[in-house]
Amino acid sequence: MNAEIIAVGTELLLGQIANTNGQYLSKQLTHHGVNIYRHTVVGDNLQRIRQAIRTAAKHNDIVILTGGLGPTEDDVTRNALAEEYDLKLVHEARALEHVEAFFQARGQTASDANRRQALHVEGSEVLQNHVGLACGMVYKHENTWFILLPGPPRELEGMFEKEVRPLLSAANQSHEFLLSRTLKFYGIGESALEARLHDLIVHQGNPTIAPLAGQDEVSLRLTVKDTDRAHAESKLDTLEEAINERCGEFLYGYDEDTLVSKALDRLRGRGWRVASAESVTGGWLSASLTDVAGASDVFAGGVIAYRDETKQKQLNVKPATLQTDGAVSEACAREMAAGVRRTYHSEVGISLTGVAGPDDQEGHPPGTLFIGISSPDVTQVYARHLQGDRATIRRRAAKEACACLLEVGGER
Amino acid sequence: MNAEIIAVGTELLLGQIANTNGQYLSKQLTHHGVNIYRHTVVGDNLQRIRQAIRTAAKHNDIVILTGGLGPTEDDVTRNALAEEYDLKLVHEARALEHVEAFFQARGQTASDANRRQALHVEGSEVLQNHVGLACGMVYKHENTWFILLPGPPRELEGMFEKEVRPLLSAANQSHEFLLSRTLKFYGIGESALEARLHDLIVHQGNPTIAPLAGQDEVSLRLTVKDTDRAHAESKLDTLEEAINERCGEFLYGYDEDTLVSKALDRLRGRGWRVASAESVTGGWLSASLTDVAGASDVFAGGVIAYRDETKQKQLNVKPATLQTDGAVSEACAREMAAGVRRTYHSEVGISLTGVAGPDDQEGHPPGTLFIGISSPDVTQVYARHLQGDRATIRRRAAKEACACLLEVGGER
Repeated sequence: MNAEIIAVGTELLLGQIANTNGQYLSKQLTHHGVNIYRHTVVGDNLQRIRQAIRTAAKHNDIVILTGGLGPTEDDVTRNALAEEYDLKLVHEARALEHVEAFFQARGQTASDANRRQALHVEGSEVLQNHVGLACGMVYKHENTWFILLPGPPRELEGMFEKEVRPLLSAANQSHEFLLSRTLKFYGIGESALEARLHDLIVHQGNPTIAPLAGQDEVSLRLTVKDTDRAHAESKLDTLEEAINERCGEFLYGYDEDTLVSKALDRLRGRGWRVASAESVTGGWLSASLTDVAGASDVFAGGVIAYRDETKQKQLNVKPATLQTDGAVSEACAREMAAGVRRTYHSEVGISLTGVAGPDDQEGHPPGTLFIGISSPDVTQVYARHLQGDRATIRRRAAKEACACLLEVGGER
Repeated sequence: MNAEIIAVGTELLLGQIANTNGQYLSKQLTHHGVNIYRHTVVGDNLQRIRQAIRTAAKHNDIVILTGGLGPTEDDVTRNALAEEYDLKLVHEARALEHVEAFFQARGQTASDANRRQALHVEGSEVLQNHVGLACGMVYKHENTWFILLPGPPRELEGMFEKEVRPLLSAANQSHEFLLSRTLKFYGIGESALEARLHDLIVHQGNPTIAPLAGQDEVSLRLTVKDTDRAHAESKLDTLEEAINERCGEFLYGYDEDTLVSKALDRLRGRGWRVASAESVTGGWLSASLTDVAGASDVFAGGVIAYRDETKQKQLNVKPATLQTDGAVSEACAREMAAGVRRTYHSEVGISLTGVAGPDDQEGHPPGTLFIGISSPDVTQVYARHLQGDRATIRRRAAKEACACLLEVGGER
């Protein structure tokens, strides 16, 4: 089953908002096994909407139009559908009641403009709006189902959930469903990963393999279509094994896992707490570790040691170290990690010192990074060189620190 | 001049990401006086891309294609353009050098896949990628300009800024130019701002007024079209004055200003340094303050006091305060701010304590926030109640703290 999503709204073409309705509907329809053929965005223009409807009807079983159902003159989506197929617009009794009750409850009277929101094309089935006033509708022309939904995301999502989803479930008679599993990798780039998996990607069928490049990470989404859940799971398992053979050393988790959540889980598993001492990242690592609710059982606390003075006073870094090795050094990272571990009486101390740029510091170029880890098992400093501008280096440094924490907590 | 934006990528049709590139480009092109005719999203499918190219060429002077320029097999945007107009793909010397140098610097050799990113259609002008590897290109077929840009937003935006914008400016031969000024507001919502400016917005002409809702902030972009710079500036001044009369109390800066940069400037102006004590934000405020290069002359350092123990030991919060008032309290915020100011011998101490959620804490609902400020002028606690999920509350809390710092540094 193919579907096209047509979003109507000049504000989209002006770039005032992104087409998040298109994203939401794509996710939902994909989940129901519907193949999304295309997204189209057109302005509040009757002829353009009609043209989009005409083109979409040629290729699709379902055409969803979003937006243009409001009360104003330039809300013309329903008119476009009506004119295209020579239909009348009529008031729907229940929707009209809904509009009139809304204004009555506020001691007002619905205007003609407001009452337009209860218009639907004759022969269509009305979709109730549980959040706002504009009614939606489903209309079948030849072999194509047209679904008209309101533009405001809350109204659209509410109507989709309560009115459209049941229709889709009922229409899916093949009992085929899609099952997905996302594999998450860190420490390998998108093209290097794809090179290792080249044969699997080229010869993919069912399941499919979709590489997704995220920020500093790569994911692979495996998707299988089947009618039996156990069978589907086992197909995914087989494919995952083949992928693991080629690049399992970079796999750190699945689906909703993040480097942070995995690092915290590992530490929690060992009953360890961690304290952070940040120079170059200025709080990014601590902020990342505490993004996850319930981090307080693992995260002991932190020091932002942006200046040498702080490194000495709060973390007991030796003045001699700062003088001979400098603040951006392996020795300083080691002492910072040990220092913060003592300060917070935690099992693990982690430190970051380096250069975020744009300028060199102590003769080191931007991207220079030392991550110190002090734990009951080991005290170690990881030297890294990161690419990117200031913001990227800081973000990547915090991520790299999480990856180091993951190793400290145990084997990947 | 009409333009269509074709975004290529199966991940868009699956709803994994929203078409934010379409939004970005619409905004930029609109700013250059280009009319956006349509957005189209198609999958990584050669025939569908060709079909989209063919249709778009009929209606548009400019067709921008985004995405599908990566190194992998399913990156076929450049192939689609080449096949549609029967052109060869050739390596561009400078782009190829760029790819090879990238891998050489890492002690690696570029693979054939990587080298594909330096391919362009013969006869096109290559657009340099200053952030990533894929080169872009501009190709003219009959009366339509095709512009191919990479999909990753940072690469696309960098290429647009440095390579495409100058072409658009040069193409504008009327000697009319656009001059913009962005006014930045904090503490007022978009609809409240628009209500105050209703008459100005409704009767706008030249200059235009475009409200831009950002994250927790609102901006107004004033744009004037003129042939004389002084005249243009004075038109913007007049409009800004009218806006200031209605909501000047929320205006904090212009264009590239951020709440953080303004807060740091104010403190720097008074010769003050600030130290931070963060509980609920877990490092967000410190990370924000140090996002700006050169913050170290103003930012003294910080303590992430996520646990009561840390609040006592590192910040000298009294055990009695934690017992009677609790950690989420005005008294605790006050003691934290005073404590961190003493620890770091800074002129200003700022503290954040509150509840990020999802659960209540000490009987307070998520969103509860106390910001303590201790300065030579004043010691004060600001109580706030923020809306949103955990991540939103943490982000807004850090922003709210910056707004408080701005006030401490002097009058807005």
